[in-house]
Amino acid sequence: MKRLMAEVNISEGKDKTLINEVREALLKNDVEVIDIDSEPNHNRTVFTYIGDPQNVLQGTKDLAAKAVELIDMTKHTGSHPRMGAVDVVPFIPVKDITTEEAVEIAKEFGKYLGSLGVPVYYYEDATDNPDRKSLVKIRKGQYEAFEEKMKHEEWKPDEGPFEFVPKSGATVTGVRFPLVAFNVNLITENIDICKKIVQAIRGATGGYKYVRAIALPLEEEKMIQISMNLVNYEKTPIHRVFETIKSEARAYGISVAGTELVGPVPLMALEDVLDHYLQTHNFSMEQIYL
Amino acid sequence: MKRLMAEVNISEGKDKTLINEVREALLKNDVEVIDIDSEPNHNRTVFTYIGDPQNVLQGTKDLAAKAVELIDMTKHTGSHPRMGAVDVVPFIPVKDITTEEAVEIAKEFGKYLGSLGVPVYYYEDATDNPDRKSLVKIRKGQYEAFEEKMKHEEWKPDEGPFEFVPKSGATVTGVRFPLVAFNVNLITENIDICKKIVQAIRGATGGYKYVRAIALPLEEEKMIQISMNLVNYEKTPIHRVFETIKSEARAYGISVAGTELVGPVPLMALEDVLDHYLQTHNFSMEQIYL
Repeated sequence: MKRLMAEVNISEGKDKTLINEVREALLKNDVEVIDIDSEPNHNRTVFTYIGDPQNVLQGTKDLAAKAVELIDMTKHTGSHPRMGAVDVVPFIPVKDITTEEAVEIAKEFGKYLGSLGVPVYYYEDATDNPDRKSLVKIRKGQYEAFEEKMKHEEWKPDEGPFEFVPKSGATVTGVRFPLVAFNVNLITENIDICKKIVQAIRGATGGYKYVRAIALPLEEEKMIQISMNLVNYEKTPIHRVFETIKSEARAYGISVAGTELVGPVPLMALEDVLDHYLQTHNFSMEQIYL
Repeated sequence: MKRLMAEVNISEGKDKTLINEVREALLKNDVEVIDIDSEPNHNRTVFTYIGDPQNVLQGTKDLAAKAVELIDMTKHTGSHPRMGAVDVVPFIPVKDITTEEAVEIAKEFGKYLGSLGVPVYYYEDATDNPDRKSLVKIRKGQYEAFEEKMKHEEWKPDEGPFEFVPKSGATVTGVRFPLVAFNVNLITENIDICKKIVQAIRGATGGYKYVRAIALPLEEEKMIQISMNLVNYEKTPIHRVFETIKSEARAYGISVAGTELVGPVPLMALEDVLDHYLQTHNFSMEQIYL
């Protein structure tokens, strides 16, 4: 059974009536909602749901159409970077679906949103343009920069009008591997040591290729958090990163107070963890029931 | 959503046509099959499935009626202990269902099977009779002993006729907590040390209350397996037993070659394992998607 996930970020995290109308538009469709997370400070809501690819596509169209109708970006403020009413829409292949099939869904969604008058950019696995692979690059300067950016040929959108649309801003959509957000809290207040640990584990500085990491002080707890995105849990599994952090920390006499797996986690990512710690060399996810 | 599991053991593990007819009877119902495991040496097949309690009840009735129709116990041989064509039928409450509700289902099934002329005994959580709590006690002497046993008032069945029925034999049904079958392979051929490790961990000899264990030589591999049933993974979790085995083995310089989780494993049982090894103190199963 094909399973596709969508994680739709919209630029409204306070107005409950509005968020609820958007939610209702989604729920007309047969999708399984995993999480709806509104952050008032970010002024942003993330809808995460899963299901048959066609149902997920239709649900995403309905959700996005409602968000574009109701959200006015000319009035939006919030602490999280953003460029549009429907900000970023990653589709995530979960089961029995190839990246290519997911890219087709993302492009069907992109065409639809473009037809509503929203400039749409494809990113990650949905584009071959190296300047559009990264959300951070496309969103640089945020909503406010797009009026200027859209005067330049390099920012011609992949779908929709080649002009700045003040009310909706622009949308990024595409396909990416499931992220695992994993934080490790260390019993120390020495940020320099923690930065060394971050350097040891993250891909950008010679660590594990698929780890993005930063060290954040947790002032109230008098601890420091290594906050990570594991962007390919198959090639860089959770337990390997965790064991490396423990080993590096131990060299400074620093212990782990605890960890956090944040948001939805694919069962697949946990299978490797179980195999490692329980030494089950042949355990299969098919054995799990719930 | 209520989820009930059934694990139906029938006394036929060789005749594929027969097993398939029984399977077809089950599959007329809307249940999710987790596993169908036929063991020719045991001459036994275990059907494991899950679903809405009423669907599971109806599926179990249909499966059992077909097995009772087709299997003739007067001709049955096999290495696994057994007492009837439909041998033992545990119902296992998996989600949003109380033990009491599951007991009602087990009794509806027992009444139905009794009405087909099969003597039925309730066990585990479906009985208050201390002599009928344990399957091993009820099945003592196996099929062959029942002709004699059923001459005595203490073996009056809970449902069905109070007489030996040669063709069907008798059936045990009831409700139990999900079992986890967990084996640990130790790199040693010293059975005496392994028996000491077994004593250290199993409830019957002062170890963990909900662990049943034996030590089995794996002659080809030149190893010894600690073979366990964890009968309450909430109160005696997998990782705690595993860590104790590793610690006891280490005292003799013995290492773990690997482990096996056998058959279906409830996701709940794995949550504790993840929490322990990853030190995620607040991880919730609701975060897992598949």
